[in-house]
Amino acid sequence: MSIKIIVTGGTFDKEYNELNGELFFRKTHLQEMLALGRSRMKIRIKTLMMIDSLVMTDAHRRKILKECLAAGEHSVVITHGTDTMAETAKMLGPKVRNKTVVLTGAMVPYRFGSSDGMFNLGSAVSFAQTLPPGVYIAMNGRYFSWYNVRKNKTKGEFEEVK
Amino acid sequence: MSIKIIVTGGTFDKEYNELNGELFFRKTHLQEMLALGRSRMKIRIKTLMMIDSLVMTDAHRRKILKECLAAGEHSVVITHGTDTMAETAKMLGPKVRNKTVVLTGAMVPYRFGSSDGMFNLGSAVSFAQTLPPGVYIAMNGRYFSWYNVRKNKTKGEFEEVK
Amino acid sequence: MSIKIIVTGGTFDKEYNELNGELFFRKTHLQEMLALGRSRMKIRIKTLMMIDSLVMTDAHRRKILKECLAAGEHSVVITHGTDTMAETAKMLGPKVRNKTVVLTGAMVPYRFGSSDGMFNLGSAVSFAQTLPPGVYIAMNGRYFSWYNVRKNKTKGEFEEVK
Amino acid sequence: MSIKIIVTGGTFDKEYNELNGELFFRKTHLQEMLALGRSRMKIRIKTLMMIDSLVMTDAHRRKILKECLAAGEHSVVITHGTDTMAETAKMLGPKVRNKTVVLTGAMVPYRFGSSDGMFNLGSAVSFAQTLPPGVYIAMNGRYFSWYNVRKNKTKGEFEEVK
Repeated sequence: MSIKIIVTGGTFDKEYNELNGELFFRKTHLQEMLALGRSRMKIRIKTLMMIDSLVMTDAHRRKILKECLAAGEHSVVITHGTDTMAETAKMLGPKVRNKTVVLTGAMVPYRFGSSDGMFNLGSAVSFAQTLPPGVYIAMNGRYFSWYNVRKNKTKGEFEEVK
Repeated sequence: MSIKIIVTGGTFDKEYNELNGELFFRKTHLQEMLALGRSRMKIRIKTLMMIDSLVMTDAHRRKILKECLAAGEHSVVITHGTDTMAETAKMLGPKVRNKTVVLTGAMVPYRFGSSDGMFNLGSAVSFAQTLPPGVYIAMNGRYFSWYNVRKNKTKGEFEEVK
Repeated sequence: MSIKIIVTGGTFDKEYNELNGELFFRKTHLQEMLALGRSRMKIRIKTLMMIDSLVMTDAHRRKILKECLAAGEHSVVITHGTDTMAETAKMLGPKVRNKTVVLTGAMVPYRFGSSDGMFNLGSAVSFAQTLPPGVYIAMNGRYFSWYNVRKNKTKGEFEEVK
Repeated sequence: MSIKIIVTGGTFDKEYNELNGELFFRKTHLQEMLALGRSRMKIRIKTLMMIDSLVMTDAHRRKILKECLAAGEHSVVITHGTDTMAETAKMLGPKVRNKTVVLTGAMVPYRFGSSDGMFNLGSAVSFAQTLPPGVYIAMNGRYFSWYNVRKNKTKGEFEEVK
């Protein structure tokens, strides 16, 4: 089974600029993370954008949708900032057919050591292989359907709406 | 959905004894790993044994089987040394009914930083929630059925037998 | 020999707030860092302030000076943000007598794993034990006298002025 | 000021072989450690041997002595296993003139994350720049003269003999 990973940025890939003390994007750490996880899956990684999900616009989301639809793989994982991950899922949900699309992200940058990124990545690629076609979010070891999920910003975790 | 995690030891939980330079077991790191992964699942952890899988006997495997059968949860994850993980899966496979049991482990101890443990744990709990009843191994981002898996000891990865 | 460590904040002690993605101060990591370094020195730690050195005022520096002068120990280490470390050293230099005072800091937060903090801390406590009385900066494995040091903000390293 | 670092192996440089679960030596991590510490010193690194200090013989020690005496630098750091570090110091002590030689090591391999190696390395290069000529051990944030030091193997720390 092969999986396509679409990289959009988010906390996952943020780095610390030691010259000015700010967080920034350089390049994705997905290859490095999959190697660290001793992944032996057939995976294609496409870096579509490298942005904070708070600045994501409808145009960005249309680009993500287009990339999902164009994927030859049945299983698609999208790395995404957590702040608007649920919005992107809601936009993709009604439009994706015959594919299992799983959005995931991290609360702490992979580079900062105490990251939940490795756990979430292992979770997302696994759900992408086994869940029925549809659009999902994989966070906190759980999966959520696109039409019933939100980020609880006080707790920093995902939950069902009802 | 709730998950039971049965801890048996393995590389996952090995630590470095700085007084004599040897690897040893103290206690499981599962709680710490789940916290790091910001897991919000309902999970019960049972430390059944803390051993290297090379010293695992039939008696140990019967104990693991008994614990699987007794679990009230539908989803069960077993942490296990990789060397004889396939043997334990083969023993459990024909005897477990109506449950999804996923064995997982690590090539490098969690404590040593460069571990594949977080990735595998995220993968195992996800497969345990979505695969149909049966016994599986989750390693390298993939899952394998109990009757068709072996560890390739030269490559340090799992593969199908045929 | 006993050492006093005066904590003022700086990159050393910054943490990542996973709820809003910003860097902030909680409490000092000095105890944890010394424990990780298996330090067996007699050390007293005093958290004087927890601020970014860019917001440090003359009033803050007078407070640091007062704490230095009041210290019963001959060896004093000050953890400090790197941006204005040289300014603080210049203010302390002419006023400290009969003590070896060493300022140090980090380019990357200790919490972010890839830190230079452990190296600099090991360096600073060592220079504090062996250099003659005076005020110094310990960074990049080197020491600099208070009257001849500046941070090269382009390179992110310390250098002599002439 | 320039420093010569003589690498002899020890826990410092041990790695975990994930295929057989054993610790082994590959190559030294000194360059990587100095880079992580943002070291800007003039340093020459010479890998003389890569062995556990428990297997170190008189012949090995003579080789280390020869390398110390041949060094053009006034400051020399030797990375060494902790178990027989004091023995090597005692052999070098009476024979080294006009140089400051500092032996250091680690209780936990650098690769295992929780290492004291970065702290000890920062400490050793600093003592090597400031202590008067002689042979010393730098461990636990302290320095010890060659004729008055032993490893307390129960506590895993260095101490004065009397």
